[in-house]
Amino acid sequence: MGYRLGGRYIEGLDHLGSGLSFAEQIDRAVRSAQVFSDLAREESSLLGGFLNVFRVRKGSPFIFEGDEGTFMVVVLSGQVSVVKQFDGPHPKLVATVGPGKTLGEMSMIDGEPRFATCLAAEETIFAMLDRKGFLEIIEKRPALASKVLLHLVVLLNQRLRQASAKLLEVMEGGEKKPARR
Amino acid sequence: MGYRLGGRYIEGLDHLGSGLSFAEQIDRAVRSAQVFSDLAREESSLLGGFLNVFRVRKGSPFIFEGDEGTFMVVVLSGQVSVVKQFDGPHPKLVATVGPGKTLGEMSMIDGEPRFATCLAAEETIFAMLDRKGFLEIIEKRPALASKVLLHLVVLLNQRLRQASAKLLEVMEGGEKKPARR
Repeated sequence: MGYRLGGRYIEGLDHLGSGLSFAEQIDRAVRSAQVFSDLAREESSLLGGFLNVFRVRKGSPFIFEGDEGTFMVVVLSGQVSVVKQFDGPHPKLVATVGPGKTLGEMSMIDGEPRFATCLAAEETIFAMLDRKGFLEIIEKRPALASKVLLHLVVLLNQRLRQASAKLLEVMEGGEKKPARR
Repeated sequence: MGYRLGGRYIEGLDHLGSGLSFAEQIDRAVRSAQVFSDLAREESSLLGGFLNVFRVRKGSPFIFEGDEGTFMVVVLSGQVSVVKQFDGPHPKLVATVGPGKTLGEMSMIDGEPRFATCLAAEETIFAMLDRKGFLEIIEKRPALASKVLLHLVVLLNQRLRQASAKLLEVMEGGEKKPARR
């Protein structure tokens, strides 16, 4: 066990093969992932051709805070802990993520450093899409790409609204009184 | 002068026609708009067919905080003030936006209420894309759509990173000490 992913050799990582061999699981996960949710069955199997599937051992990190992001993953089974290094000596748990959730899409797209570290909280299987595959989808399957991208835009919009609301709340609250929403 | 836009009749608004008649101006603006920046000349004129161009009189608002968002605009000339109602009695200026900048894309995409009000700080000409046109582009011109959407994703990503960084800064700063970045 051990495989190279995103420029790092990862001990607990096992390559299970192309997404084409995991059509059923990918279809299920992809449908519950917000980013891909309204893909038709044929579209999700089309997508499978651009994905690679990995198994990662419990405890093993596979996305590293600060790394240049070159891929995203869709969790097919298992649980992932998202941890971030703040000022203190120990990283903090930011989120726990299960099947159907996507991780790392922001950095895959803009190449900015990873915001947090992702590690397998239990044995986890995920489908991986790298930037090369992503650009290939855009080039070769623009209809599929625009559908996925539209979802990504909606998702980012939501997150941005939440962050902005939270920011207003914190800033207003800090200045005068507890925020209203 | 006066025209119906986004379900409101706007006094100071004048419809100048389809984007097809403003190919030159749209091409210039679209190239400086981050969202559309790497469109080829043919793509930007393709886009023009989905746009409508308006002139808005100085002082006139054309996007209203709290409204359901059904369109976005690209500023072709002039200046737009973005104002938001906070707790106080008067709205505050949030930003001033000039040619090549886009406004309202978030609400157009997810239909959430407008975050702020946009008004012409001077006579302003803008190209407008509504949700219907946007969905038409996705359906009829998926390659163009995926290019535009990819830019939108990158842009939203940037904003989300900025908002997240700011939020961390404010929250950390509030708790203990001035934030580091």
